[in-house]
Amino acid sequence: MTKAVVLLSGGMDSATALAVAKAEGCDCYALSVDYGQRHKYELTAAKMVAEDLGVIEHKIIALDLSNFGGSALTDQSLSIPVEETIGIPITYVPARNTIFFSLALAWSETIEAESIYSGINAIDYSGYPDCRPEYIAALQDLFDLATKKTVEGHKIHLETPLIDLTKTEIISLGRAKGVDFSKTVSCYQTDEDGRSCGICDSCRLRIKAFKDLQIEDTIEYIKRNSIIK
Amino acid sequence: MTKAVVLLSGGMDSATALAVAKAEGCDCYALSVDYGQRHKYELTAAKMVAEDLGVIEHKIIALDLSNFGGSALTDQSLSIPVEETIGIPITYVPARNTIFFSLALAWSETIEAESIYSGINAIDYSGYPDCRPEYIAALQDLFDLATKKTVEGHKIHLETPLIDLTKTEIISLGRAKGVDFSKTVSCYQTDEDGRSCGICDSCRLRIKAFKDLQIEDTIEYIKRNSIIK
Repeated sequence: MTKAVVLLSGGMDSATALAVAKAEGCDCYALSVDYGQRHKYELTAAKMVAEDLGVIEHKIIALDLSNFGGSALTDQSLSIPVEETIGIPITYVPARNTIFFSLALAWSETIEAESIYSGINAIDYSGYPDCRPEYIAALQDLFDLATKKTVEGHKIHLETPLIDLTKTEIISLGRAKGVDFSKTVSCYQTDEDGRSCGICDSCRLRIKAFKDLQIEDTIEYIKRNSIIK
Repeated sequence: MTKAVVLLSGGMDSATALAVAKAEGCDCYALSVDYGQRHKYELTAAKMVAEDLGVIEHKIIALDLSNFGGSALTDQSLSIPVEETIGIPITYVPARNTIFFSLALAWSETIEAESIYSGINAIDYSGYPDCRPEYIAALQDLFDLATKKTVEGHKIHLETPLIDLTKTEIISLGRAKGVDFSKTVSCYQTDEDGRSCGICDSCRLRIKAFKDLQIEDTIEYIKRNSIIK
């Protein structure tokens, strides 16, 4: 068995990435970040997913990115958009993926993991710059130079098995690999009971994908966006 | 005036990088990380340096890297080497620079800074992989793809003005730019009063450089390494 660090947000994509890593024979170490996100319930979801899929260890690291601000996900004074936005939306968190991957790199090095799995994808996503294949390629080039392990010849592979998949393909893959999507959450503004708003960008993508697949999404919504066809 | 985020550890190199950024006309935003380092006194030094050199703001971000371990700087059960070691020493902190640069990237983006200054150098250093010019080049390539700002055409420049300088050259440059080195600290294992051990790798490099320059180093040492010629 090889070891993999898996970035786990509690959403559908990272849960599927974890299931893929397991299916590929990895001992999985799940990493979540308590970064001051307004949808903190995702950490509860991440715990359930990690337990359900049987990770070796699940770390939740505290790093308050609201120190830097600049995102509706970490700044409660900014509203979450409920309609599609042009360009990169305000839910983009500055440098978040770069920071999270760097943390995963640190853990990978100390436990001698050979890979880092992430559920990022560049198809049904919100247009974030740090979800693109060219970003991942540059990150791999950096990681090949960045650590003692890599200098000693032990490569740490970035694995993004969902990067070219649509949301419906991700759900299908996740189901095939044993993900229980009722334990995941996608909403950017879950309420204190973990209920999803049903109207944010992330809810919209989720609801549409389940509808397209004609599969029931059993998580609880406050309301469902009427613009979803 | 352009804005710059400056990674500030409290040591000689980052203090000099800050002074250079100021001399180059930047409004400086200093960033330090409380990462569980055993030489936590360096954060006190960083505060003094930031105040002395007149930054616009100094943030100290909490991120406990002892969660990951793997370094004598974050794991008190490992000893700090007092003799030169072959290869990359145990004071190397996995992915530390990659994490710190990522945090600087986040702040740079939110305040619209045009540059990130770091005091890393590849001459009189401890052989860390994430201090080499090729690492910085790869990091710049990544940063050019990583953020909303860069996608919109606003480059964030990595500035490493000390990368090719020896320790004596750094001290000379810092003095010319107004650094008060008595406010800096270099030791990996300062005691609770902020006194330097005088025998670790980092103390050795510092003591030798001051000696070579025939300048008095006025910080307090517990003892000075007798192997310094």
